[in-house]
Amino acid sequence: MTTTKHAEATIEAVKDVPMITITRDFHATPEQLLRAHTDPEIFKQWVGPDSVGTEIDYWDARTGGSWRFTNTRDDEEYGFHGSFHEVGPGRIVQTFTWEGMPEGVSLETMTFEDLGDGRTRLHSQSLVDSFEGRDAWLSSGMEVGVNEGYAKLDRLLADAAV
Amino acid sequence: MTTTKHAEATIEAVKDVPMITITRDFHATPEQLLRAHTDPEIFKQWVGPDSVGTEIDYWDARTGGSWRFTNTRDDEEYGFHGSFHEVGPGRIVQTFTWEGMPEGVSLETMTFEDLGDGRTRLHSQSLVDSFEGRDAWLSSGMEVGVNEGYAKLDRLLADAAV
Repeated sequence: MTTTKHAEATIEAVKDVPMITITRDFHATPEQLLRAHTDPEIFKQWVGPDSVGTEIDYWDARTGGSWRFTNTRDDEEYGFHGSFHEVGPGRIVQTFTWEGMPEGVSLETMTFEDLGDGRTRLHSQSLVDSFEGRDAWLSSGMEVGVNEGYAKLDRLLADAAV
Repeated sequence: MTTTKHAEATIEAVKDVPMITITRDFHATPEQLLRAHTDPEIFKQWVGPDSVGTEIDYWDARTGGSWRFTNTRDDEEYGFHGSFHEVGPGRIVQTFTWEGMPEGVSLETMTFEDLGDGRTRLHSQSLVDSFEGRDAWLSSGMEVGVNEGYAKLDRLLADAAV
């Protein structure tokens, strides 16, 4: 049996700026990664940890659009929402709020670097307005959702479902 | 003759975070300041320096909406656009891009502190992802537009036009 092993996502706290960067390589084209982040029927299948289900409440992935989804685990529901500042072939810029802490807003930028040979590197940055907020997020266990989510996306890509 | 003198806006570079804060007191209620920032027919009358005219291209001031306006000076036109992450009675959170430098995006948060006696303090913060970008903005002469714009808003408030 051949298994394709991917490195885990590299999650880094930027030293001087209250920002988290995530870098992750995929066996995908930039167009597929853009679709994985903008098509709600694909996005809901991979985002977040394995322990939650995702439902799209509203989703309008264009410059000036907005989005909201919920995660459900047992009887608990968590909401997330934001607006799309820019949705273009080269990058996505959007805002993000977890409704459990509605005062917190991050500005997220994703770019897709074509590595050739059908591989693409995702560069994601999340900017917030304080180091305290950034570090609380980093210590919340967010890497579980990031890595489990991207592993689901790997499987969708392997199944040609993106 | 009695003149009402306002202090100029206080524009500060935050030391540790790539953010600019602006603080400015107005003879206005919080509701009036919210309206001044969300009603496009009012907003276009005061935003920016005296030397430009403002036209609204599109404007949907609600959570999840978006906006674009242009400034015209002589034969030159400058575009600005963004999305509204949150428009509530307590605050406005929106993105902002000057289209002359489209890769730059700031996350803007405005709150309105009721000082009593019909006075309100505007707190505005603009967060960007680098100190270089922040400092270039600060040294661009942006204080002229800020102060001339707020002086126009003072006059609209004095004329009961807000």
